[in-house]
Amino acid sequence: MPHLFDEATRVSAGDSGWIGRTSDDYWAFVGPFGGATAATILRALMDHPERVGDPLSLTVNFCAPIAQGAFDLDVRLIKANRSTQHWSVEMTQDGAEVATFATAVFAEPRPSWSHQQVGFPPATPFEQTLPYAKVAAPWVRQYDFRFVEGEPNFGGKPQAAPTSAFSKLWIGDRIPRKIDALSLMSMSDAFFGRVFHARRELMPFGTVSLTTYFHADAQDLAAEDTSRVLAVADAKIFHKSYGDQAGELWSPGGRLLATTHQIAYFKTQA
Amino acid sequence: MPHLFDEATRVSAGDSGWIGRTSDDYWAFVGPFGGATAATILRALMDHPERVGDPLSLTVNFCAPIAQGAFDLDVRLIKANRSTQHWSVEMTQDGAEVATFATAVFAEPRPSWSHQQVGFPPATPFEQTLPYAKVAAPWVRQYDFRFVEGEPNFGGKPQAAPTSAFSKLWIGDRIPRKIDALSLMSMSDAFFGRVFHARRELMPFGTVSLTTYFHADAQDLAAEDTSRVLAVADAKIFHKSYGDQAGELWSPGGRLLATTHQIAYFKTQA
Repeated sequence: MPHLFDEATRVSAGDSGWIGRTSDDYWAFVGPFGGATAATILRALMDHPERVGDPLSLTVNFCAPIAQGAFDLDVRLIKANRSTQHWSVEMTQDGAEVATFATAVFAEPRPSWSHQQVGFPPATPFEQTLPYAKVAAPWVRQYDFRFVEGEPNFGGKPQAAPTSAFSKLWIGDRIPRKIDALSLMSMSDAFFGRVFHARRELMPFGTVSLTTYFHADAQDLAAEDTSRVLAVADAKIFHKSYGDQAGELWSPGGRLLATTHQIAYFKTQA
Repeated sequence: MPHLFDEATRVSAGDSGWIGRTSDDYWAFVGPFGGATAATILRALMDHPERVGDPLSLTVNFCAPIAQGAFDLDVRLIKANRSTQHWSVEMTQDGAEVATFATAVFAEPRPSWSHQQVGFPPATPFEQTLPYAKVAAPWVRQYDFRFVEGEPNFGGKPQAAPTSAFSKLWIGDRIPRKIDALSLMSMSDAFFGRVFHARRELMPFGTVSLTTYFHADAQDLAAEDTSRVLAVADAKIFHKSYGDQAGELWSPGGRLLATTHQIAYFKTQA
């Protein structure tokens, strides 16, 4: 039986492109969890017969709300070079305007000088870290979040002075699943909104544009052979209704698997 | 007379889209400076009659070499919402395949709670920092680079142990020009390759995908009223011929104007 995540991000060949369906298991408050959408788009590219190489970069622009139900993915190979491919993907529903727009780069990994400039963030081991228990949206239930630092505390009174927006946490699928590019893509949008942390309160929020860079190819990921990542995220600025987020996803073995960036909308006045 | 930068990034309305020309003044070794290309694309969007709001995010994928001469920009409004617009831009030459592909988000700035989570990086003032004198490519001559930290030293022997990839520098146009979204876009690609710093040597190198988030709108930039930025950049990983870069562009007044990220190709074995 396929893993819930693979079920949720399944695509199949339609008349003129890929087709898929939103998943109730990965539902957020007003639409599908963005990470599941991004992973579904990535899957349509990974499964494409013309795809060559491994994902290097994926940018997803969330243009409009996605309704529960079926969607179409219009996949286009913009340009293929000797060792890279540039793709675009448009997600639509019922022939309406574009709801999600993505661009991706695939590359054939070539040996080179290799170096991590940064070290594995110190963290208590997964087994010694408590699971996050407060679960509001269905998609959050699909993950095993274990906060090492910056556990959310959104219940209290909004802070007069902003608090840290930094989080460090283990993320695994609730039903363990080996980490691959698809789960990295999804997990790169699985951080809670940085503004929630900075303000210690929930508010209307939505990712506008998300970019993930992959620093490990399929072979590297197979070698890591893990079902969880150590994830860190922080923000630099919140201004005029938009804020940033930068994150890293690490293997327990100490390899930086992916870096991720996003700009997100939020709504709060005071 | 227009500033050299405005001349270099000029676009005009063609039969079915924008047309432009590469600039010899902003030429790199084997093609136009990527920052000038990105700024030209942004200008085509800024000047578009349907454009509403300020740039929030621009992702540019460099798909193929751009030859000296004319190019076409096919601009498409993918989706417009109440306060945001999603655009795509395809750059082609002579009807050939796409050379550069970009997606952008524009947003109408709305007042909100505002906070910088990070502080202005400590730096010697611009006036007390020495200009960078070693200039190889024409585009480098168009900028006044003043290194506070991480001044390039690419002449020596490659280091056995990798050195820091961090740089902190002032960047202004050589002929001073007020900082706007266009110059921020260009400057966000004006860092030297991080791998050059880490290895202390030059090698074949090219930006593959570049994303810049704008944290200051036109009104904010007018208030800063400056012709230079303090810029910092660093890298986290170099692996299998690709490396990352994350950067920040600050006003001298201490405002974080833009954050920028890229993944770049490099070629070195040992």
